[in-house]
Amino acid sequence: YMPRQGGGARGRQLATLGRIAQEKFIDPAVGKLLDELVSLTADLPYDDDTASLVRVTRRQYERSIKVSPDFVAEMYDHTAQIYDVWKEARPKADFGMVAPYLEKSVALSRRYANFFPDHEHIADPLIDSSDYGMSVSTVRPLFAQLREALVPLVREISDRPEIDDSCLKQHYPENKQREFGLKVLQAYGFDFERGRQDKTAHPFMIRFNTGDIRITTRYKDNDLSEGLFSTLHECGHALYEMGVNPDFDGTALGRGASSGVHESQSRLWENLVGRSRLFWEYYYPQLQEVFPEQLNDVSLDTFYAAINKVAPSLIRTDADEVTYNLHVMIRFDLALNLLEGTLAVADLAEAWHARYEADLGVRAPNDTNGVLQDVHWYSGLIGGSFQGYTLGNVMSATFFEAALKAEPRVLAQIKQGEFATLHRWLRTNVYHHGRKFTAAELVERVSGEPLSIDPYIAYLHKKYGELYDLG
Amino acid sequence: YMPRQGGGARGRQLATLGRIAQEKFIDPAVGKLLDELVSLTADLPYDDDTASLVRVTRRQYERSIKVSPDFVAEMYDHTAQIYDVWKEARPKADFGMVAPYLEKSVALSRRYANFFPDHEHIADPLIDSSDYGMSVSTVRPLFAQLREALVPLVREISDRPEIDDSCLKQHYPENKQREFGLKVLQAYGFDFERGRQDKTAHPFMIRFNTGDIRITTRYKDNDLSEGLFSTLHECGHALYEMGVNPDFDGTALGRGASSGVHESQSRLWENLVGRSRLFWEYYYPQLQEVFPEQLNDVSLDTFYAAINKVAPSLIRTDADEVTYNLHVMIRFDLALNLLEGTLAVADLAEAWHARYEADLGVRAPNDTNGVLQDVHWYSGLIGGSFQGYTLGNVMSATFFEAALKAEPRVLAQIKQGEFATLHRWLRTNVYHHGRKFTAAELVERVSGEPLSIDPYIAYLHKKYGELYDLG
Repeated sequence: YMPRQGGGARGRQLATLGRIAQEKFIDPAVGKLLDELVSLTADLPYDDDTASLVRVTRRQYERSIKVSPDFVAEMYDHTAQIYDVWKEARPKADFGMVAPYLEKSVALSRRYANFFPDHEHIADPLIDSSDYGMSVSTVRPLFAQLREALVPLVREISDRPEIDDSCLKQHYPENKQREFGLKVLQAYGFDFERGRQDKTAHPFMIRFNTGDIRITTRYKDNDLSEGLFSTLHECGHALYEMGVNPDFDGTALGRGASSGVHESQSRLWENLVGRSRLFWEYYYPQLQEVFPEQLNDVSLDTFYAAINKVAPSLIRTDADEVTYNLHVMIRFDLALNLLEGTLAVADLAEAWHARYEADLGVRAPNDTNGVLQDVHWYSGLIGGSFQGYTLGNVMSATFFEAALKAEPRVLAQIKQGEFATLHRWLRTNVYHHGRKFTAAELVERVSGEPLSIDPYIAYLHKKYGELYDLG
Repeated sequence: YMPRQGGGARGRQLATLGRIAQEKFIDPAVGKLLDELVSLTADLPYDDDTASLVRVTRRQYERSIKVSPDFVAEMYDHTAQIYDVWKEARPKADFGMVAPYLEKSVALSRRYANFFPDHEHIADPLIDSSDYGMSVSTVRPLFAQLREALVPLVREISDRPEIDDSCLKQHYPENKQREFGLKVLQAYGFDFERGRQDKTAHPFMIRFNTGDIRITTRYKDNDLSEGLFSTLHECGHALYEMGVNPDFDGTALGRGASSGVHESQSRLWENLVGRSRLFWEYYYPQLQEVFPEQLNDVSLDTFYAAINKVAPSLIRTDADEVTYNLHVMIRFDLALNLLEGTLAVADLAEAWHARYEADLGVRAPNDTNGVLQDVHWYSGLIGGSFQGYTLGNVMSATFFEAALKAEPRVLAQIKQGEFATLHRWLRTNVYHHGRKFTAAELVERVSGEPLSIDPYIAYLHKKYGELYDLG
């Protein structure tokens, strides 16, 4: 909602607050106090709240003191600059315009990584900063397995008749889309005493504190899925933050565990619940009531197929569940190559096209929907911002499977438009802990096993095997 | 737009930021630097930007170092508490509930004043903090003169037939009210690249920085004047902030001069322009086009009289131009009596009723619309928050008269719906200076004379003499 000319000063305000917060946090007195607290809490169990608060705060402290304040200031400055250049370059498809800035981003990202000299791979400190405990050596093999499973699945689906999703592309008045979305938010358990939904150009979730957690969405009046599924996606992020133990508010524990675990919850509520057949057995008649002209002649089967249509495409954020991870892996691999020095920024745009042709069989007509597509590389350090999306997809199935095992009635309830049991289980086993446990620890606690792609692949095979009548 | 449960943490965040900002500002190193700057700028003219920046910053520094950080923290705490109690007490009309808190507010206000031991009157430091340079010894005589002029005017008007304002009390759909309001905002020169308008429970203007200046309004669908005039009022505040020299942004000069000068601009655009006959000669036909069913049978004369109807009433914010200042003076006087110790909090509610009966001839049925009416006494220190409203009314006429003298064509332009000349004159002579000059200096610069109530009284007599056909 900010007026166009408010951006510059807002950026300076954020940089000032960021610097002051950093200065206060890395004060050696804080380190001494944390040392004392570590010994005072040494006898407490690992999962004790106080012990966890000390452990996680100290981990963040150790990371923060390694990075020089000058570097942080330089990074903020650079981020503001490259973002503005990207905003201009993207519609012009002019990658050359932003390339020198991206070279500086690569250099800054390498400098950041080198504040942590014991890293195994140059991208590890960057991955670690958003998905603590993860590294190239854990993510790469997982992604390789996933790719091995996904590529043949995409190929099989491509051989089947294309799904007709024209029912979604009719005129859907915005106010009615909003009304239906709010109904599902209510049913999911979004707490309107502690949150609200607004409209923005790009949907997001933001937590200010435990009593103020907001989501945004956008509507297209000629595409029903945009507003609907971005609402359910951001709701998943919000349910996570709303479920964090309120005692943790304002501390290092008062947030979701990691970028990957966060994404597991947005994708669980968006896809595993919100694009499931059971969900729509309950909600489709209600949706038809809201949009009788558009949907009364469309069967549940047709609608369900339309919202789950698989088709290789150019845009990550519009991608279906099956091809989505291929988009993510392209970005993950290319960023690693840039950091390793095996790919030059000058060759990046073409490397992008080549990978899209190889992995998805499509090529963007220019760089607007190619290498300039996502904001991530043009708004901070690179190398740590994409793995979370795919880790989240993988974990979404792990958490959902564990919930069903503990509470088998969840499926029957979804078919009744009831989500309280599922929500409660996730709150108890994931959300409440905030940042107490790492992603790997959460997965182990709920599934009894290390992170594996098996539940996710099994989920995709079952759902899309039925939908596309695969052998 | 904040969710209901977000208030607590927001209060703590503001207190933390306020404390950090205060700590940084009162650092003795800042004082030393300011001392150096004072000597470096000693030879510059008084109105030089740099000299003014140093002068005003140093004045704020001198004030800030006198107040102990502990006091500031205690005040923030108390403010949060009393505000919550007031919100509960007001609808219950239970002044007793909030009285002990108000006693603490009085004590805190006295303690604040005593950080400035050379004050002449206990309220002076409180008045000075929002209307720099003003004091009880300057405000009281001005208010006494005003009262002497207003009371007979109100009495004369009361003897005339009552104006029928029922044309304003019809059904006015909100979206059409908003559309018309936006049209006037555009014409006034509100810059939508640097601002926006939203809806809130209580209208206000807020400046984040020179590129982000927002106003809010509220609409009643059975009362046209509420949304319309609150829009014009807040627009006046916004035009002032938007006109401040952008080079001053983020400095002590980058704000309006004082609470009184600010109010002079909101009232100028709301009343002297927005409730003038010339304004409506241009806009009334357009308003009729927007609301044909409601207004096609209502003449301009009837409408103009309705929006300027004078009638003693209970609520300050709904009061007409003539009686408004009587509401303000009651509050000003009672707060001074509390601070002087000549009135006890226990007797305040009855003192309120007595003054309303004496000055306005009305008595509220209970304290909800009596002593509990305004938020001001229940959201901070008392004694400095009301004089600005009446000083603003007085100055609005001074500034408008000066503008007309310099640019006589302004009146003919208003009749054409053009405001650029008036806006430019105010920007050049008032807005651009930000906080460089005090209220008294601004008045002297534009009118060549010290602040006087004469232009304001002349304005009221002329306008209401014609409207009520007074002798």
